[in-house]
Parts: sequence; structure tokens; C-alpha cells
Amino acid sequence: MLPRKDLFDLPDGIVYLDGNSLGPLPRGAAARARTVIAEEWGGQLIRAWNQAGWMSLPQRVGDRIAPLIGAPRGSVATGDTLSIKVYQALAAALSMRPDRKIILSDSGNFPTDLYMADGLAGLIGRGHKVVTPPPEEVMSRIDGDVAAVMLTHVDYRTGRMHDMDAMTRAAHDAGAVMIWDLAHSAGAVPLDVGRSKAEFAVGCTYKYLNGGPGAPAFIHVRPDIVEGIAPALSGWMGHESPFAMERAYRPAMSTERLRIGTPPVIQLSVLDAALDIWEWVDMDDIRAASVELSERFIAGVEASCPHLKLVSPRRWQERGSQVSFAFEHGYAAMQALIDRGVIGDYRAPGIMRFGFTPLYLDRNDIDKAVAIMAGVFEKELWRDPRYNVMSAVT
Amino acid sequence: MLPRKDLFDLPDGIVYLDGNSLGPLPRGAAARARTVIAEEWGGQLIRAWNQAGWMSLPQRVGDRIAPLIGAPRGSVATGDTLSIKVYQALAAALSMRPDRKIILSDSGNFPTDLYMADGLAGLIGRGHKVVTPPPEEVMSRIDGDVAAVMLTHVDYRTGRMHDMDAMTRAAHDAGAVMIWDLAHSAGAVPLDVGRSKAEFAVGCTYKYLNGGPGAPAFIHVRPDIVEGIAPALSGWMGHESPFAMERAYRPAMSTERLRIGTPPVIQLSVLDAALDIWEWVDMDDIRAASVELSERFIAGVEASCPHLKLVSPRRWQERGSQVSFAFEHGYAAMQALIDRGVIGDYRAPGIMRFGFTPLYLDRNDIDKAVAIMAGVFEKELWRDPRYNVMSAVT
Repeated sequence: MLPRKDLFDLPDGIVYLDGNSLGPLPRGAAARARTVIAEEWGGQLIRAWNQAGWMSLPQRVGDRIAPLIGAPRGSVATGDTLSIKVYQALAAALSMRPDRKIILSDSGNFPTDLYMADGLAGLIGRGHKVVTPPPEEVMSRIDGDVAAVMLTHVDYRTGRMHDMDAMTRAAHDAGAVMIWDLAHSAGAVPLDVGRSKAEFAVGCTYKYLNGGPGAPAFIHVRPDIVEGIAPALSGWMGHESPFAMERAYRPAMSTERLRIGTPPVIQLSVLDAALDIWEWVDMDDIRAASVELSERFIAGVEASCPHLKLVSPRRWQERGSQVSFAFEHGYAAMQALIDRGVIGDYRAPGIMRFGFTPLYLDRNDIDKAVAIMAGVFEKELWRDPRYNVMSAVT
Repeated sequence: MLPRKDLFDLPDGIVYLDGNSLGPLPRGAAARARTVIAEEWGGQLIRAWNQAGWMSLPQRVGDRIAPLIGAPRGSVATGDTLSIKVYQALAAALSMRPDRKIILSDSGNFPTDLYMADGLAGLIGRGHKVVTPPPEEVMSRIDGDVAAVMLTHVDYRTGRMHDMDAMTRAAHDAGAVMIWDLAHSAGAVPLDVGRSKAEFAVGCTYKYLNGGPGAPAFIHVRPDIVEGIAPALSGWMGHESPFAMERAYRPAMSTERLRIGTPPVIQLSVLDAALDIWEWVDMDDIRAASVELSERFIAGVEASCPHLKLVSPRRWQERGSQVSFAFEHGYAAMQALIDRGVIGDYRAPGIMRFGFTPLYLDRNDIDKAVAIMAGVFEKELWRDPRYNVMSAVT
């Protein structure tokens, strides 16, 4: 049964609609951090790599993420950041299609994915181009020049969700490699990357998976192609036998070849504890509750906040688990909401984002958020000058 | 005054000679982890990026590492792993010398540095070659074909230390770019990368800087060349204005352009707390004590363990802060030592490593370690079959 607020340490008096940016603290995570720091690092020192299982931790965490994205065990490697995982997937994809020069994405993709693609294309220096049509035009732009279709499944600003199976099929029909960024999907919507047959999927774990600030990223590779991939970022932890200290790089015979350097043991342990939550809940239940909460929120906001214009798809089937509204003074309005305990966030230009995370949100939370929003907009509280001082992140 | 054992949580009854692999737990680190997890993440949630200063944390930690390596404030970026930082430095170096094809390193370099270089050369696909002569021959191999000289300052197996100033001068005299890997130097020996005028220095923080397992890496770029560097790994956190969410990548006008993805806030906070130690101690004092302890250890071991052959340079001026001995049954012998509370480590083939960290080691520790080693070798305890079962890491 949802929600399971008992699994989280949530501060009193707030409605947290920003789990799409940073998930809250799972109760088990703080205890696990204490254990890994005081007992394992402090007490076992270097021996913890074996005794406490640190060596196998990246793989074990990957095996816990796999079922959440519909991937087989052993097909998910963890570590680094999402930017790095995007780079690895794209470098591999381009090497699989050496005669094609187009990297097809969309204009709604998260900037770092496109920046990493630009940087990779520049480094390779053989004329690859990153093309970013509007999301709804991507499918029609797939042709025989496209080496890789690289898309974020759920748009970070609008919540618009691509059709994973249909898009992957279209990519494959044209001979292109498919890369999905699941940053706003993993833990938010049911996923079946295995069924889609996409070659690569990458994602982050600090949003709907509640892994903590800067938690490690993941990469899934379709098992039948792993052994053909020559990793561009060929670090020792991707070596078949890292402690043999060989001069020659021999990639591991599994997805582990996409590991790079020494794993961030503390953050991985916290993430591992956060993943315990999924032992208790079902992704289909999460989705059903997310749709209900989102629909209730849209209806409430549209009835009471006429300033706001819905920029997310109106049909829930086309959305992930967030709802966004456009408003000229969105930054200041979001500050006014946060000041009153309703925490969402703002993304330039002019987008107010609200994430729906049924693990720790119920109808009462939504009704409370809508009531507070109605008050802010009725009184035009965003005009208060103190809400118009931009800080680094919101 | 050294040592400062009071600054660490050390388990009773062991002599820890493996701080060159994983530094022990600083007392302040556990408390800081509790704060960042429970109060900042748990209590402030997304607001902690501003309120708790997470946004500026990578830069602030870089500014604390800078004086430890003789670099100016603002010239050190933190995050990712050392493998990634090696890749960034080398990609930049190669782009600075487009007509040269040789990456000159040495046969003693840590494997991941060479693997990353191999992978980069393969990705670029324009005939770059990684050349690895023995360490003592590197200087004579620098010529006008060398794009970058990429060396680990202190050899991870032997402790052999390159002459940073002389080598950098030789590289520059031939028009090559100099990259130093300080993994076994930072926090171990006095460093002055500024004086050396090397273009790049990279390092890790979980060894002599005690940042915890998988702590973030760092990269220093000589300030006068930063603005000319087009980062190969061009992530959003290296953007001049990441939250403007622009389509075009505009690198930050500082070393921050070498940041990539969302920073690992928990590990960075733990590292930040570990760096407090350097407010209390001086690197010259550390070096003097390290030399004394190492010399005492070598004398004691050579007098009582005739099976062991010193493979570190005999002159302390040519060593970092570790001492290594070759022994055919080194793996089993190290297990026998660990079983008796003397923790060093083993590196294939046949090398027993001992790190000297005067922050938490004194003469009594060294004498105790020597006495235990003498007993192990006198009784040939490495012959015990249970010490001959190889595990992943030692």
C-alpha cells in the first residue's frame, strides 16, 4: 500500500514535489552510511574491500537497478555520473556505425547529454553532428545517416514521455543504435528496456531512486553486444583482471567493462540502502498512484491558478511523473511556494516543475499544495522583491 | 608535533602501513557525514544545494587541496575518479600539440593511466602511441615527437620518485606538455607543481589525504592555459552557467570547466572534513618524519628478514613515502602479517608494499611491525596454506 512515508525521514510541514530533482532521505540510508564509515572504513580499513564486499558492490547495486528498468541481471554497471555514462554509450554507438555521422537527439534533451555528445564529436573530429529537432519530429528524422538516436525518455522540463518501444523500433529499422537516458524515468514509470531491445540505457539514481546527492549513475548494455564494445573510457575497474596490473587493457567479459575508476563506496552504499525500498513496493502501483496524484494536481491548479499554463502533455499516457506549468514570473512564484512549504523547482526559461512521488505523497499533500498555490496566485505573492533574487539552484 | 593519532579513529592492536592505498577514518569525517546526510539532505532536501553550500563544495575542496600540491587557489577542480581526470588532462594535452603523436609515460605507471591513454588514442584514431620505457630512461626519450609526458610522480609499486622540476623542464625544452599523476604524492611529500610549471597535475584523495573509499579525484591546470582548453568531457557542471540550460556548451572561465556531472556531495563532504587535518600539520614535518620511519623500517627489515629484497630506491631522496620489498611468496607473507596486525598490501608480481604515514605512525609502531615481520620470516609462516588463497584485493 502506498504511500510508505515510514520509509523516509521527511521534515515536518512541507509538501515535497521535487523528488524528480533530489529524492528525500530513506531511513535506512543514514544507518548504512554510519556502518560503512565507522565499521567498514574505520574498523576494517583496507580489508573492507574484501571483508565488507566493497569490490562487488558496484555489480550488486547494478543488479538491483536492473529489474527496475526491465533489464536482465548482470547487464547494468554503476558508477561515475550520468554525463560520463552518456559519453560511454555514445562512443560505443558511434564505433558500431562508423560510416554514419548523425547523432539524433531532441531539443528537449537535458543539456549535459548534448554537451557530452558535442564534446565527443569534437574529439573524434570526423564530422559527426548532433541534430536536435523538436521531440515530436524525432521519429520522422530517423534515416540511414543516423548513427545513434540518443533521447531522454522523459523530458526534464515538460515531463513529455517518448514511446520507448516505437522509437527504438524506428531507430533499428533505419539501422541506428538506440540510447535511452532514464534520468526522469527510473523509479518513476514502469520500464522494459529489455523488451525495447535498445542497445544502451543510462540513468541517474538521485531522483526517483532516492540515492542521495551526487549518487552514482548507471549504464545498461544489451547483453548480446557487450563483448563487441571497446570502451572509450577504459579504466582499470573495467579490466577483466584489474589486480593483475597488466600493461594491456583486456575488457571484462560483461557490462563491468563499462566501469572506469575506483568506485565511490560511501555513495554506492547509501544508494544500496535506498534501493531496499523497492523490495516493498511495485512499480505498477507507483505509476497508478502517480497518475492519480498528477491528475488531481492539474485539475486543482487549473481551477485556482489561472496565471499558469500547462506545458506538460495533458494525456497522462504521454507524461512521466512530473507536471510543469509555464509562468513568466515562475522563479519568484516558486520561491514564494517554497517559503510556504511547497517545494518544487524552476527551470529556465519560465518553467515551474512539480514531481509526483507516491512513495511519500498522498492526496492530502496534493490538496494542501493546491490550496497554498491558490493563495500565492490569488495574492500575487511572487511580486515580493525578496523572491526575485536568483540563486544558483532552486 | 607528530604523530596526531588523536585526529583518527584507528582500531586497536594494528600497525597500519597501508595509508598509501586507503587512508584511515579521520574523526571529523564520520560526524560530517552524519550532518550532510541527516541535516542537509534529510532536513533541507533540494534547498541544501544553496543553503548548505553544496554548489560551491567542489571548488572549496579544490581550494583546500591546492596548497598541498603547491598550486594557486582556483586552479584545482574536484570530482570523478583519477582515471577520468587523467583522460581530461591527456585529451587537452594532445589537442595542444596536434602535430605530435607520442604519449610518453613509463613502465612503472599505474595501469589505469596507461589504459585510459590507450583508449583515448584509439578513440581519436590518428595514430597516437603510448610509449613506456623504464622510469630511468624517460628523460632521454623526450624529443620533438612527444606531445605529452604523462608520469606518476611516485611509482605505486616501488615508491621510486621522479624529479618533478627536472622532468618538467626536459618536457618543456622539447615542446611537450607535462602531466603529473600525484596519486602517491599528495599528502605524502612536499609538492610544488606551481614551481615546476607543469601544465596538468591530477591525483586521488583516498590515500594520503584520507578522503575515504572512492573519494573524488582532482585536477590542476596551470592558470595561464585554462582558457584555451576545450574540455573533451564537456559536462554541464563545467558550463559557465549550468542552470541557464543553454543548448551551446560555453566552458567556465576557470579550472571549473574540467568539472563534468553532478558532484558526489556525500563523498566530497567527507573529504572536506578529512582535509581539516592539514590545518594542524606541516608537509615538511610529515616528510621528515616519513623519512625517519622509512629508514628505520628498512634497517630493521634488512637485519631480520633476509628473504626480502628492497625494490625501492635506497636513497630516501629518490623515494616517496612507501617502501617495497620483493619476495616470491609475498602474497602469502602479507596475509600472515595482516593476520598478526601489520597491515601492508601486495601488488603483483611479488611486491610487498608498506606505506609510511607519520600522521598516525610513530617509531614504536615501526619497531612493532619489524618484530612481527621478523617472527613471520623466521618461522616461514607464509607456508601456511590458508595464506595462499588469493582474494580480489589485499
